[in-house]
Amino acid sequence: MGTIIPETFTATPAEFGIGARLTLAVMRDDYAAVILDALQQADSTGLALQTGVVSTYLSGAEPDLLRYVSQVVAGASRSGAHVTATVQFSRGCPGEVTCTLPPTGGLFAEVVNLTPTGVHAVAEWALYPLDDGTGSASADHMRDIYAAIETAKASGLTVHSEHFVTRLEGDLALVLQVIAAGWIVAGRTVQHVATHATLSLNSPSLNSHAS
Amino acid sequence: MGTIIPETFTATPAEFGIGARLTLAVMRDDYAAVILDALQQADSTGLALQTGVVSTYLSGAEPDLLRYVSQVVAGASRSGAHVTATVQFSRGCPGEVTCTLPPTGGLFAEVVNLTPTGVHAVAEWALYPLDDGTGSASADHMRDIYAAIETAKASGLTVHSEHFVTRLEGDLALVLQVIAAGWIVAGRTVQHVATHATLSLNSPSLNSHAS
Repeated sequence: MGTIIPETFTATPAEFGIGARLTLAVMRDDYAAVILDALQQADSTGLALQTGVVSTYLSGAEPDLLRYVSQVVAGASRSGAHVTATVQFSRGCPGEVTCTLPPTGGLFAEVVNLTPTGVHAVAEWALYPLDDGTGSASADHMRDIYAAIETAKASGLTVHSEHFVTRLEGDLALVLQVIAAGWIVAGRTVQHVATHATLSLNSPSLNSHAS
Repeated sequence: MGTIIPETFTATPAEFGIGARLTLAVMRDDYAAVILDALQQADSTGLALQTGVVSTYLSGAEPDLLRYVSQVVAGASRSGAHVTATVQFSRGCPGEVTCTLPPTGGLFAEVVNLTPTGVHAVAEWALYPLDDGTGSASADHMRDIYAAIETAKASGLTVHSEHFVTRLEGDLALVLQVIAAGWIVAGRTVQHVATHATLSLNSPSLNSHAS
């Protein structure tokens, strides 16, 4: 689990378990139409999608995952409805508990830049580098999390420390970009990295809580 | 991080960072009234609550956290609306990145039993034991996750393996009980453990996906 990942790795995103789960909630009577419309208008090029009762599972490379999630959430938000989106990104552990990988090791990935959406988002974000320390001299999951938060603070987003999460505010695309950057960079030294974010858009309580 | 936790630990739940974050989404025009009603009818005894734009932060002991989350989600679901709930439980790392604990070590907790709700839930669940291996001879986060999934399979819930998550179906109370049990039991040998679940209730697509 703690193996340093070579940059020469050649596995596909699916073989390395790179993917996401997305749950979209639209707080309006016509939620089904809003969600369907957002899904149909988003560009899913390069992705395999599987829709379930709780979430949609997305498998593919990081730029495709990020573009699709940004477009779906932005599309639903442009309805004007209060929307929450729950997104989980994972890498390095295909399947549920089986982390068998091709023998060539991990996967180096570049951070992704997204086109701004004009949609304001507030997110609560948690990053989990799952390093058991067996292959590295100094596993320290809090060090990796702290580095990701420092990157977030330099991004231009409004960043607040909260219990268990970091709150990010700004353009939806930049929020997703920063969340994914933390996940991608941690993944350069830790095989199995997951990250979770809950995003709120068009919240009627935003004005009373924003700082 | 990998220190074995003595059963004699005397810190309070707040000192050990035991808490949850809950985001409730109700897919109906009157969502605000449904959420407010569910919050007012739930028993928050023993908990400190802090409501934000994205989630409500709950601090307190495991039985109080579980009872409150179960009652809030069940209450909103009894409106008949399609509801999603995103819940994060965390222990062993108060604050955002500072994991300073009282010098007496970790906290042993009993698993919690909840009263059945009569509300059917489908959840996607992920468990993250954040053991850096520095204090234990054999840190293995997948071993702890696998043990939690075996417990889930013995609980009477319907359990399915999915990419990145385990899907649990059954009474909302039992779903939450199993999620928390995995988190609590992993926390007996790993200081910092987080778990995330996204729950879907009254989903109109349930019949076409349930197995």
